[in-house]
Amino acid sequence: MSESVSGQSQGGIAVVPPAAPTTPRDPRSFVSHAYEERTADLGEIVMNYAETGSPANPALLLIPGQTESWWGYEKAMALLAADFHVFAVDLRGQGRSTWTPGRYTLDNFGNDLVRFIATVIKRPVIVSGCSSGGLLSAWLSAYALPGQVRGTVWEDPPFFSSETTPLVGQSIKQAIGPVFKLYATYLGDQWKIGDWEGMKKAAAADPLPLLRGIPFAAEPPQNLLEYDPEWGRAFWEGTVARNCPHETLLAQVKTPVLLTHHGRFVVPDGGRLLGAMSDLQAAKVQDLVKAAGQRIEYTSLPTAAHAMHNADPKTFADLVTAWAKGLA
Amino acid sequence: MSESVSGQSQGGIAVVPPAAPTTPRDPRSFVSHAYEERTADLGEIVMNYAETGSPANPALLLIPGQTESWWGYEKAMALLAADFHVFAVDLRGQGRSTWTPGRYTLDNFGNDLVRFIATVIKRPVIVSGCSSGGLLSAWLSAYALPGQVRGTVWEDPPFFSSETTPLVGQSIKQAIGPVFKLYATYLGDQWKIGDWEGMKKAAAADPLPLLRGIPFAAEPPQNLLEYDPEWGRAFWEGTVARNCPHETLLAQVKTPVLLTHHGRFVVPDGGRLLGAMSDLQAAKVQDLVKAAGQRIEYTSLPTAAHAMHNADPKTFADLVTAWAKGLA
Repeated sequence: MSESVSGQSQGGIAVVPPAAPTTPRDPRSFVSHAYEERTADLGEIVMNYAETGSPANPALLLIPGQTESWWGYEKAMALLAADFHVFAVDLRGQGRSTWTPGRYTLDNFGNDLVRFIATVIKRPVIVSGCSSGGLLSAWLSAYALPGQVRGTVWEDPPFFSSETTPLVGQSIKQAIGPVFKLYATYLGDQWKIGDWEGMKKAAAADPLPLLRGIPFAAEPPQNLLEYDPEWGRAFWEGTVARNCPHETLLAQVKTPVLLTHHGRFVVPDGGRLLGAMSDLQAAKVQDLVKAAGQRIEYTSLPTAAHAMHNADPKTFADLVTAWAKGLA
Repeated sequence: MSESVSGQSQGGIAVVPPAAPTTPRDPRSFVSHAYEERTADLGEIVMNYAETGSPANPALLLIPGQTESWWGYEKAMALLAADFHVFAVDLRGQGRSTWTPGRYTLDNFGNDLVRFIATVIKRPVIVSGCSSGGLLSAWLSAYALPGQVRGTVWEDPPFFSSETTPLVGQSIKQAIGPVFKLYATYLGDQWKIGDWEGMKKAAAADPLPLLRGIPFAAEPPQNLLEYDPEWGRAFWEGTVARNCPHETLLAQVKTPVLLTHHGRFVVPDGGRLLGAMSDLQAAKVQDLVKAAGQRIEYTSLPTAAHAMHNADPKTFADLVTAWAKGLA
């Protein structure tokens, strides 16, 4: 009986004196990478980042996506180093940056980056982000301090599809959301649960082909070990964008944009979205940016992987480099 | 029948071509004040502020509370000008600063202030805020950029009592919340409704003595005309602090604190809180700040008005001035 389990049937109320608070154990372990890692104290978080290229070249800020860390850009950084002064960061809850329970929102991620640009990069920057990092590239275009951002690349960003009540098209529930919910449930906020085997079993038995099709490894991969699964819960529950409606953000974009749109497919039976955005959602993104008076270049790459910067770094680096040459 | 009213019984679906978007009319009107008003473009918002005193003196940032604008500090500014370089601001949704529908959160209010300190004040500052502004004074102590804040005064801040699921004591529903809900309902987001008479009638007929007791004027007062009632909805619905739990913030306070606690009363029948915090809530605030390793001076002023800085500016100015002398 649940009463027995919870102790509610034991009778009376036993007042237990409070224990001294303990600092939660950080379960992360890390590996070394091709670039030296540095840190910046931004107030609430310490941000981890890597840097390459010459300060004589234009500054370029790279923002990874959900379940990725800065080193997802390692191969692209080697290609971009000749033309840019490159900074690749870990957001809060990613990589070696601070985990912030209860505080994963687009606005908090974005304001960390405003502080990073102001105190580390210290000059106008071109920004490129993938997936959630693409949303943040757009966020910076709309909401950064005046003069901080020269132009923004949005690499396959989940506009509308990562909201719970989107203006147009599939919601998070009808897109990648169930995967994030799976992570959040079986790995837990800050990996408090960490039931990798239970997660694989649940996915294999799920009615949704999306979950049954995930090729899970025997052990958690390094990128997931560095990821706070509470990110996933914040997306699934909608708190990440609750006070940052995508259409409000897009209506305030203030810089030129390069939008790349990778592989996507709408399942005819049920209408679920596989991929970051439907064509309808990508069209609405462009409409809103144009209505804001900004130039947006749209590149459809239907055979590209979601994290093209990692799967095909040359195509990614060539696109960013060519587009950046056209910026004022 | 509702089907007739909504048109759903008319048969078929009539596709209406989209109208050109129109910019919503800003319903605000303003009056002049004793200090010149200036503005700072912070990216998303233009912040309105007033300034007095000499740059040779310590910088002091004053943050008004909900339904107040910067000029609530006018009388206090005259008293503080001899000892401080004083900046009094309008937050987003207050006074002449930009209204930001859908985007009223402690984190967004706070990050506007981080930007204001970085780009306008440009040196370490003492912060004093009242009510919601007191929460933001605490927010800056916890989350501002390193070195921005020297010390913080929290004038009767609604810790815990302005959350929907507080760690301790009364929630917003058991405190001032119904007043904010009333404003939000009858005035509407951005004053879209503006039914002052309807609001008065609803308050007069409400079962809650709190609402029946409000001494509404015949016409909306200037401070409310400058206030976006969506603030009230954000507090009532809890979105303002949804991703900024008060106990998480308090555990990260990084500067000395002066906490003043004004008139408060817990109604024996029902346990409602009249005032900003119960004694229990104020005690928990102090526990958490001390556990964070910071000095907190607590001053109980049970006969003081909530906005003491306006009702009794001399007591306020004397307290702040004396306490500031003890700061490093």
